[in-house]
Amino acid sequence: MSDTDASARDVADRMERVAFNADGLVAAIVQQHDTLEVLMLGWMDAEALRRTLTSGRVTFWSRSRGEYWRKGDTSGNVQLVRGARLDCDGDAVLVSVEQVGPACHTGTRTCFDSDDLVPAVVDDERRGRS
Amino acid sequence: MSDTDASARDVADRMERVAFNADGLVAAIVQQHDTLEVLMLGWMDAEALRRTLTSGRVTFWSRSRGEYWRKGDTSGNVQLVRGARLDCDGDAVLVSVEQVGPACHTGTRTCFDSDDLVPAVVDDERRGRS
Repeated sequence: MSDTDASARDVADRMERVAFNADGLVAAIVQQHDTLEVLMLGWMDAEALRRTLTSGRVTFWSRSRGEYWRKGDTSGNVQLVRGARLDCDGDAVLVSVEQVGPACHTGTRTCFDSDDLVPAVVDDERRGRS
Repeated sequence: MSDTDASARDVADRMERVAFNADGLVAAIVQQHDTLEVLMLGWMDAEALRRTLTSGRVTFWSRSRGEYWRKGDTSGNVQLVRGARLDCDGDAVLVSVEQVGPACHTGTRTCFDSDDLVPAVVDDERRGRS
């Protein structure tokens, strides 16, 4: 068996632990590996996750378009995989990346840069205790 | 109108921008405000998000138990709200918190500490280019 076959089998083994939802999807949080900015949240089915773990490029499943897509195929703002971890109940993946350029299609660095929900109460109990 | 009423109305206005899914839920990524660790992913319905934005404590909707829950009510490991931002298409919230103690019910700091998916190819294009 080649190293490539062994590696693909290892990836398949690790993917057995993922708890895909009723639509066959798992939430993928994308985080810049060095600054630790949370860049975006996307969705992966098993094939998108397999491609992510074996190609070096983050691959999503588009629920609205019904197709696979990779950040940067049209914009050039690619997401290069640095790591990937599964959460304790298997239904969320944290993907560590090198993001080239803006992660958001609106041109901002992250998809969370534009819309502050401004909590009315912040860190309340801690202030109450101090 | 009291300040409290005005604040509650402002929160309701901001929540109009949230695109809850078919189950009435939005994904909530929880991030430690200073270290920027991603601690966990949870789910909020409109009421859980309203409580999160108005109480100072992160509140989720448990899909398995069908009830609201706040991290730390039994363990003491509370999540105190520092900020909250909505993503560009309105279907994910990034909540900045002060996490007291471990975020994960398994006792680890984050829910992503235990299960490395070990991508077979890492940062491939960048290496190829250098």
